[in-house]
Amino acid sequence: MQSNRLTALHPADAGVSRSLKQRLAATRNDSLLLAAKLSDEDQVVQAMDDASPTKWHLAHTTWFFEAFVLEPHLTDYRAFDERLHYCFNSYYETAGPRHPRPQRGMLTRPSSAEVRDYRAHVDRGLETLFETYADELPETLAALIELGINHEQQHQELILTDILSLFDQNPLFPAYDPEYFKKPAGADSADDGEWLRQDGGIRQIGTVGEQFHYDNEGPSHAVLLQPFRLNARLVSNGDWLEFMADGGYQTATLWLSDGWGHIRANEWNAPGYWRRLNDGWHQMTLAGLIPIDPQMPVSHVSYYEADAFARWAGKRLPTEFEWEVAVNTHRRSIGDAFDQLWQWTASAYAAYPGYRPAAGAIGEYNGKFMCNQFVLRGSSHATAPGHSRLTYRNFFYPDARWQFTGLRLAEDAT
Amino acid sequence: MQSNRLTALHPADAGVSRSLKQRLAATRNDSLLLAAKLSDEDQVVQAMDDASPTKWHLAHTTWFFEAFVLEPHLTDYRAFDERLHYCFNSYYETAGPRHPRPQRGMLTRPSSAEVRDYRAHVDRGLETLFETYADELPETLAALIELGINHEQQHQELILTDILSLFDQNPLFPAYDPEYFKKPAGADSADDGEWLRQDGGIRQIGTVGEQFHYDNEGPSHAVLLQPFRLNARLVSNGDWLEFMADGGYQTATLWLSDGWGHIRANEWNAPGYWRRLNDGWHQMTLAGLIPIDPQMPVSHVSYYEADAFARWAGKRLPTEFEWEVAVNTHRRSIGDAFDQLWQWTASAYAAYPGYRPAAGAIGEYNGKFMCNQFVLRGSSHATAPGHSRLTYRNFFYPDARWQFTGLRLAEDAT
Amino acid sequence: MQSNRLTALHPADAGVSRSLKQRLAATRNDSLLLAAKLSDEDQVVQAMDDASPTKWHLAHTTWFFEAFVLEPHLTDYRAFDERLHYCFNSYYETAGPRHPRPQRGMLTRPSSAEVRDYRAHVDRGLETLFETYADELPETLAALIELGINHEQQHQELILTDILSLFDQNPLFPAYDPEYFKKPAGADSADDGEWLRQDGGIRQIGTVGEQFHYDNEGPSHAVLLQPFRLNARLVSNGDWLEFMADGGYQTATLWLSDGWGHIRANEWNAPGYWRRLNDGWHQMTLAGLIPIDPQMPVSHVSYYEADAFARWAGKRLPTEFEWEVAVNTHRRSIGDAFDQLWQWTASAYAAYPGYRPAAGAIGEYNGKFMCNQFVLRGSSHATAPGHSRLTYRNFFYPDARWQFTGLRLAEDAT
Amino acid sequence: MQSNRLTALHPADAGVSRSLKQRLAATRNDSLLLAAKLSDEDQVVQAMDDASPTKWHLAHTTWFFEAFVLEPHLTDYRAFDERLHYCFNSYYETAGPRHPRPQRGMLTRPSSAEVRDYRAHVDRGLETLFETYADELPETLAALIELGINHEQQHQELILTDILSLFDQNPLFPAYDPEYFKKPAGADSADDGEWLRQDGGIRQIGTVGEQFHYDNEGPSHAVLLQPFRLNARLVSNGDWLEFMADGGYQTATLWLSDGWGHIRANEWNAPGYWRRLNDGWHQMTLAGLIPIDPQMPVSHVSYYEADAFARWAGKRLPTEFEWEVAVNTHRRSIGDAFDQLWQWTASAYAAYPGYRPAAGAIGEYNGKFMCNQFVLRGSSHATAPGHSRLTYRNFFYPDARWQFTGLRLAEDAT
Repeated sequence: MQSNRLTALHPADAGVSRSLKQRLAATRNDSLLLAAKLSDEDQVVQAMDDASPTKWHLAHTTWFFEAFVLEPHLTDYRAFDERLHYCFNSYYETAGPRHPRPQRGMLTRPSSAEVRDYRAHVDRGLETLFETYADELPETLAALIELGINHEQQHQELILTDILSLFDQNPLFPAYDPEYFKKPAGADSADDGEWLRQDGGIRQIGTVGEQFHYDNEGPSHAVLLQPFRLNARLVSNGDWLEFMADGGYQTATLWLSDGWGHIRANEWNAPGYWRRLNDGWHQMTLAGLIPIDPQMPVSHVSYYEADAFARWAGKRLPTEFEWEVAVNTHRRSIGDAFDQLWQWTASAYAAYPGYRPAAGAIGEYNGKFMCNQFVLRGSSHATAPGHSRLTYRNFFYPDARWQFTGLRLAEDAT
Repeated sequence: MQSNRLTALHPADAGVSRSLKQRLAATRNDSLLLAAKLSDEDQVVQAMDDASPTKWHLAHTTWFFEAFVLEPHLTDYRAFDERLHYCFNSYYETAGPRHPRPQRGMLTRPSSAEVRDYRAHVDRGLETLFETYADELPETLAALIELGINHEQQHQELILTDILSLFDQNPLFPAYDPEYFKKPAGADSADDGEWLRQDGGIRQIGTVGEQFHYDNEGPSHAVLLQPFRLNARLVSNGDWLEFMADGGYQTATLWLSDGWGHIRANEWNAPGYWRRLNDGWHQMTLAGLIPIDPQMPVSHVSYYEADAFARWAGKRLPTEFEWEVAVNTHRRSIGDAFDQLWQWTASAYAAYPGYRPAAGAIGEYNGKFMCNQFVLRGSSHATAPGHSRLTYRNFFYPDARWQFTGLRLAEDAT
Repeated sequence: MQSNRLTALHPADAGVSRSLKQRLAATRNDSLLLAAKLSDEDQVVQAMDDASPTKWHLAHTTWFFEAFVLEPHLTDYRAFDERLHYCFNSYYETAGPRHPRPQRGMLTRPSSAEVRDYRAHVDRGLETLFETYADELPETLAALIELGINHEQQHQELILTDILSLFDQNPLFPAYDPEYFKKPAGADSADDGEWLRQDGGIRQIGTVGEQFHYDNEGPSHAVLLQPFRLNARLVSNGDWLEFMADGGYQTATLWLSDGWGHIRANEWNAPGYWRRLNDGWHQMTLAGLIPIDPQMPVSHVSYYEADAFARWAGKRLPTEFEWEVAVNTHRRSIGDAFDQLWQWTASAYAAYPGYRPAAGAIGEYNGKFMCNQFVLRGSSHATAPGHSRLTYRNFFYPDARWQFTGLRLAEDAT
Repeated sequence: MQSNRLTALHPADAGVSRSLKQRLAATRNDSLLLAAKLSDEDQVVQAMDDASPTKWHLAHTTWFFEAFVLEPHLTDYRAFDERLHYCFNSYYETAGPRHPRPQRGMLTRPSSAEVRDYRAHVDRGLETLFETYADELPETLAALIELGINHEQQHQELILTDILSLFDQNPLFPAYDPEYFKKPAGADSADDGEWLRQDGGIRQIGTVGEQFHYDNEGPSHAVLLQPFRLNARLVSNGDWLEFMADGGYQTATLWLSDGWGHIRANEWNAPGYWRRLNDGWHQMTLAGLIPIDPQMPVSHVSYYEADAFARWAGKRLPTEFEWEVAVNTHRRSIGDAFDQLWQWTASAYAAYPGYRPAAGAIGEYNGKFMCNQFVLRGSSHATAPGHSRLTYRNFFYPDARWQFTGLRLAEDAT
């Protein structure tokens, strides 16, 4: 299956054989390539409290390397500008005070050019670090850099989700990249999707081995599952139009109480970024405003909507454990587990048994968000290449839908 | 152990041998006894959006029997006043439109006297129903009445939690009952509490047998547990004062991100209903404003606070499964599992595998709230006698603390 | 003209010859008579932030006499309960801290019975005061009592406006008094109303002589007027229905910018308390829900609506000076200047030249509100008898419409 | 007196003899010069709901000429882009729907470059118009262009007030122009300022003659004044520091009730843009963050603060009529009536007798804002040269203080 990825942006996304240094350089460069399609004006504005400006993403990922790698580990490193710590710390309480999140869009200074200088300054520091150690970095340091790479890849996806949120509010409906959004070859919703059976029993969950992973993917542990079936394809726009035509958004009994309250208060009657024009439903995308394609997987749905749709369909969402086990078993049958859309699961985001966050600021990465959010599995067409894996746990609030989020159905088996 | 219960209100709380009809009559009467300590003025006011007026509770529980038992099942039953369906439906979308929740306190009419008449009218209807069937009710009907009894018992507890919320806002600090709040005999926090060990393995969870239970307590199913220890006593006010003295409310790293945001925004620096006077901390209770007793279990803490305290103590909250298994095993060692305070667990409120809500309005009882809330186990000193059981799942939002909520610690074992 | 007044409540409203003591007693009694039509439940609830509970009005007017008359002037007076100062101070910063206005409805204690005892206690204190001085009160003291009487009369009207605001939110539409609202004999809108001409020139405005008045009615001063005409009758419901039928609420250009924003945000498309039922427009009144009578003056309109209506009609609102001069000149031709509805004027509420508020708490009575409000002239059917006068200046925010407010048109003359 | 004006920006601000066409060209160019000190990033962000991005000001003033001059009056004129009407209409209901005000900062497209093209396109259209008429424009058309020039000058001042509001939120405290803010030569607060007496009597107010003015400056009409005195100098920072030291912001009785509520809710304890650093009070200005100069006039105060200060000083604010008459009389004695700071008056913004707004969209310019605002007189150092005049009426809400606003005291005379 030909995935709809950022191939143009990641020409060198080949080698697992690439060194840490090479991957760091490639990741740092990819962020600039993503931003290069935008003007300085596009990059400074904050679309909403949940989103951040592109420039902020470029600077914050840089600050991450400066604050957690260079300042503690590179002798004689001089900060680019001490004041930027305040500007570009995101949420690390341990790392000091910071600019309020809802005002990130006020930072017209430092300029985009200065932020690019900041990136270059930190990149040189990182090069010096590699030189210092002759590329034989201590394991702790290598782990921090690996974390920084993955952190920056996450923000690369956020650059795309956040710019879409901005352009959606523009009456001119600008395209981030007119070529961006192509129909994925594997997305054919002509049939209802195969139901892939999975036996119950004790199964091992979570990360094993040496591969990079976030702390929230472990410890590896056993869970007890009941038999179930997972559908081989994502729910499509066509499916969703049926749900809408059947009064899905008007039928209280299909919804969680909080969900019903939310869609009433916000007057939701279609997925995020959908607009009804004279000639039917359209969707704002990174390629601009396009007509709804019934065969494409439905995207920009919240947990509330995903849950209501599943109830309407007489099915349910899988737990994150079911998702992980079934996708692992049926890798060949499920063409769209990764690189299409994040998939809501029925699992509230919580710690795995025995989970302990790291000490210090790095420990704030995941653990402190384990409340009020739901786990999403898989990855999206905006996820950086190489960033996906089976045990990956993404998480968002149940009303969030500015991310590239869809769903896949499950049902009990006997 | 002598529990601190509403014994005066429930003199006849003896017999399992009592008939459904007798228990119904006793429950209906208990509600009136609870209200009798309040003036009509006290009963009409709504303390906040989450709380309801006493009169509303008295009427709503009556409406429940009228709408779900009498109107569908008693031939020739005439509603007391059709308009009251609109007034006293709580959240049953299937049962029609209803008065907005935040405006329940505007209902000075119908008067308290009329609501008492309404209760008498419905009670007569229920008596007629029993007479019609010569006390041999069809099973469905008996189940509905049993549900109505339990529903009314829940609202009896809410009458107490909600009136405390009202009186707490009164500068005169009125007592609901000066005799209400006595130190429980078993609550002695002089020691740190025994750590009760529980082996890991597959354990059965949820309701079995014929006893009444809510739908959310089943289906019974197996879970896989790791070894752990549960503490034999509730966390005390004395423990909490240590937490406060150690800067618990000022240390961001102890808190979930949402929790930290919440206590900052609401300027929380002590449990709910605590007030610092010249001579130290006091607590508003159903017996009025009293000095903090360090040996009493700490109450009116939110999930956010319970979670932060556990992190500070180097422990954690138990999952609801751990709680159920350990309390079942160590019933004799845990004196305060029931009838003292509801206990926050680490478990997000979710459906058990295979859970299906009932059809119709009754199906809205539990299932539609399975999102954004956390499970509490046990019961409180305000819970109606006979209402507690091992598999009971209470649930509230993580910022709620107007209920009688406390916590019990757990830790991993090897 | 037979006015639609609270005649039943004020049988002894005859004599200017009555003594201050007699008028005080009558006023104090009138408040109780007004409250007597309500249950204790009705009296405790606060309908909205702007409104206050009946019980609060009864207690606050009593506190006014206690704090400003008895405590400073009656030797050996003992406060009924010191804590009530906190409960029932309204907005007098000089008189100490006070219960927050939006939480007046939380005060189920002190009870209504206790508030009646409070009233009796203060009434006895006032009697003692009169006895002490053998009815020859010092002038300052007499002035304070006179102010207290007028203050209590204002709150008598607020009791009625506030209870209507409460009952309007009740799905049972209770009547305060089924006999209350009778069609005023003089209100006949069959014709368009005579246009009463007034020459321009220098005119004297504001209070003169010895009659009681509020400080904001003076100093008496000269103003320069242009020739104008004032209409002899209030705008009627029938007039307003024409405005509505002509798209008045949908035509932006008729409205002040703030007004248009307000009616859009609040979805106003008719006067306050109007409801469209199957058989046409109805209005919630103190006599319950009644069909709109086109010949009655339109009431419960905000300044924004009054201003838009005048623009639609090709007329304007009079200034408060025009109103005072024209009503003084044409007393016989204007039957509804008083005792029907307060009439919005085009004048922002501001100090007269040379105005100085009194020292101390009493000085907070009027002056500190001289911003963001508009002057209304005349009086309403809910105004206490004897409380009206030509120079009286009532004032409310331009979006307020829970008062008995209407309008009268003016136009330039040549 | 050497004023602190935008002299560098307006080198050719000499000639009354300049033609309309020349003045139009100069005004259009001045806007670009003002923007030239800002990056594209600076120009796109909206600091708050009340403020607008620089780019928006540049485009909106252009739209004004396109929509009101070119489209109705220039045959064959083709709009630059029809979609921009929606983007850049401000509040003209008559001119069609428009982008919501609080989302002006979302318009990263059209780009700054495109907006400059838009300006050039419209400028060419205006040139064509002049050519068409051989510079002998019909009077109506000339009046529209004159209005457009004055409208653009107003937005030139807003560009400066709004960018200051943005930069004030930036932790780097950027300077718009380090040279901008120089101490005005005439501002010497060493003495208390001369009290200039004015006799009472009938005085003529408002515009007369042929000079350009806004509709709200007329009709010219007579008012009756009492004798008063106006102070010859603006209240200074030094005066304000005394007010603060005397507890001005903590003394409820100095404040209007709405003002006291506002400063409590917003925690104001100093003028806008003031910050207390370790070495004392500083002020954020267009030249960056600078220490408070006690001899400079106090700026960025709201009406509420101005009114409270006057009460504290035992004086009052002048009415707008008093201001106009006294400044006219004492032009030579009052060096800072213009070109320093707008001066709050005690006058609510209202129509002059006989005022009628123009028909159509132009009629929305002033009249619909005559509610809830107060009149300011004079002009500020950010006002465009030639834009000031004696009868000018500026207006803002009483809580606004992001404008260049100060105050001058008055007192009654005998």
